[in-house]
Amino acid sequence: MKDPYAAEMKAAILGICSDAVIVDVTHLVDKFNVRAGAFSLASAAPYFPNGTVHVAVVDPGVGSQRRPMAIETERGFFVGPDNGLLILAAEAQGITRIHEIVSRRLMLTHVSSTFHGRDIFAPAAAHLANGVPLEEFGSQITDFVKPQFTVVARSKDALVGEVLHVDDFGNIITNISAKDVATLKDGIVQAELPSASVQMRLHREYSDAKPQEPLALIGSHNFVEIALNQGNAALKYLAKAGDKITISRT
Amino acid sequence: MKDPYAAEMKAAILGICSDAVIVDVTHLVDKFNVRAGAFSLASAAPYFPNGTVHVAVVDPGVGSQRRPMAIETERGFFVGPDNGLLILAAEAQGITRIHEIVSRRLMLTHVSSTFHGRDIFAPAAAHLANGVPLEEFGSQITDFVKPQFTVVARSKDALVGEVLHVDDFGNIITNISAKDVATLKDGIVQAELPSASVQMRLHREYSDAKPQEPLALIGSHNFVEIALNQGNAALKYLAKAGDKITISRT
Amino acid sequence: MKDPYAAEMKAAILGICSDAVIVDVTHLVDKFNVRAGAFSLASAAPYFPNGTVHVAVVDPGVGSQRRPMAIETERGFFVGPDNGLLILAAEAQGITRIHEIVSRRLMLTHVSSTFHGRDIFAPAAAHLANGVPLEEFGSQITDFVKPQFTVVARSKDALVGEVLHVDDFGNIITNISAKDVATLKDGIVQAELPSASVQMRLHREYSDAKPQEPLALIGSHNFVEIALNQGNAALKYLAKAGDKITISRT
Repeated sequence: MKDPYAAEMKAAILGICSDAVIVDVTHLVDKFNVRAGAFSLASAAPYFPNGTVHVAVVDPGVGSQRRPMAIETERGFFVGPDNGLLILAAEAQGITRIHEIVSRRLMLTHVSSTFHGRDIFAPAAAHLANGVPLEEFGSQITDFVKPQFTVVARSKDALVGEVLHVDDFGNIITNISAKDVATLKDGIVQAELPSASVQMRLHREYSDAKPQEPLALIGSHNFVEIALNQGNAALKYLAKAGDKITISRT
Repeated sequence: MKDPYAAEMKAAILGICSDAVIVDVTHLVDKFNVRAGAFSLASAAPYFPNGTVHVAVVDPGVGSQRRPMAIETERGFFVGPDNGLLILAAEAQGITRIHEIVSRRLMLTHVSSTFHGRDIFAPAAAHLANGVPLEEFGSQITDFVKPQFTVVARSKDALVGEVLHVDDFGNIITNISAKDVATLKDGIVQAELPSASVQMRLHREYSDAKPQEPLALIGSHNFVEIALNQGNAALKYLAKAGDKITISRT
Repeated sequence: MKDPYAAEMKAAILGICSDAVIVDVTHLVDKFNVRAGAFSLASAAPYFPNGTVHVAVVDPGVGSQRRPMAIETERGFFVGPDNGLLILAAEAQGITRIHEIVSRRLMLTHVSSTFHGRDIFAPAAAHLANGVPLEEFGSQITDFVKPQFTVVARSKDALVGEVLHVDDFGNIITNISAKDVATLKDGIVQAELPSASVQMRLHREYSDAKPQEPLALIGSHNFVEIALNQGNAALKYLAKAGDKITISRT
């Protein structure tokens, strides 16, 4: 990253928990894009050891900042804003309880109005890593924001979801999971995108298709993705995150 | 980063101080741009724990390399070239003394002519982290280079400074500090840039302005910045680092 | 990086070897570009301490994945695909033996078909860091892929090699080593590239040439590079990785 913001968050963490091991997931989520951030977090979180504290932030959009919160799951913790960013990843681990973060003594001494990541979330994550109990941060909450991009509808033999993310390769990653398409396995499927209609096989590897040929596969994130072997599917099919996508058997 | 240079610096550090905790601030400072590097360092350094050793380098410009130096402050150390890069951040911590780095036994065995960051600065930082005293690196110096971009002039009711940095959001960050504008607080201010004249309110948060509306605020780095809520101010006002900026009450 | 893939590899490592110190070399090697990856690894590896385990991966190209392997050298280990990526760096350290990685119990529980970096290479590196002996991963192999981009031919007084890499500055880094050009030292040299013929001096520092003037020098990676002082040589001479280059005395 060009800006020092991520370093400032790490510095805040190390000032509180000096033996923290910090791993960057990504700093290139498009601004204000909660969906893309949620996807990155949900992709990476399953591979981290039990007890990991995940901290995430996306730039706040219109209106005021969302309230800070800390989620306890069966495998670890998630700290960040109550705007849907954490829920996709946390629900996959099994949420046990969520507390808001209001205790000033668990924040940096000076809390700026513009950078909650460094002043509130990073310190909270460090205190959780140090073993501070969740109830010391604030009250338990149940009315947290649930993201809309986790819903997959089933209509007749079709699954209707949306594009979660387009990766650096141009692979079109949907919110339709491996489990959702279990019945379609190894067949020919039809995908309807806003600007394209694609017929392809559900393969195991990119290289199972010919160069520049479309294919569907279950990516390492456990979601269905539409790809071109050695090509850029998103460019070819004009697909972008948020697009509605329907997948059906032909 | 695409090039392995930063990794080589870290490798050199870990070869000397195996339990060093290394945090990247940024590797995307524009080439030869001492001002931008100084801004990043000055923004991030305050958040690091006491005792931190900061090492920084920008690509050398015309003429020969600047002499290597190590600065001791009241809170930690700064290692890098004597070209102004370190001074903004170090002075904010209170400089206690500066030594040049000449001792060959505290450098890598083979010192290349092109990469002082890896061969001189990184090893020096690692030795400082190991507790090697400053006087073992070389003599104390007092004639270090002082950067020109820290001066803010006051003319009648106006403050005249310059643009330190344009961040990824297009926010125009000036070298005018929170303290400098204390008298302007919460009023309407006028900013004169080379290509634009902007009238706006001094707000606490980006979202206090309407979308695409200009505002001034004190950023998390403690400097005044000119921003557009959800927009790119630098693009709209054609501002860039180094531009002269005058801020006054209307 | 935008995608969470590197974080997933680190998470897999830390789940097996919790006190691993992980250093990123680069995540911006062009896709399918084994040569560029090999160059980055060969540049960085010499600076790491003895005992370092290097893990590297580039996206697989046409056809199936290459078999996973672990190389033991006189200074450490290299883990990755058998496609030439590791050999340039490993041979520089002295290869002692190479084993393929087939043992499922040293991989992640679920091995995806698309991401060997996380599911096979990262766990293998972590197990090596934990001291698991090489023979537990699989059988010794000797028929590994040798990369073509390490050959430098000598024809009369000319050296014929190729461009290994163009760095962020536009410096043209060749596969011709310091040793290869020992006889040309400090003289005027002629470089023939596909789209340009350049006459220049072999200098010690970029700044030994005038601004925008071409020069040859031995970079910190120990290879000959063609540069423009404060300019972009690759842009001027239309050079790219893989280009044939001939260097001779004038």
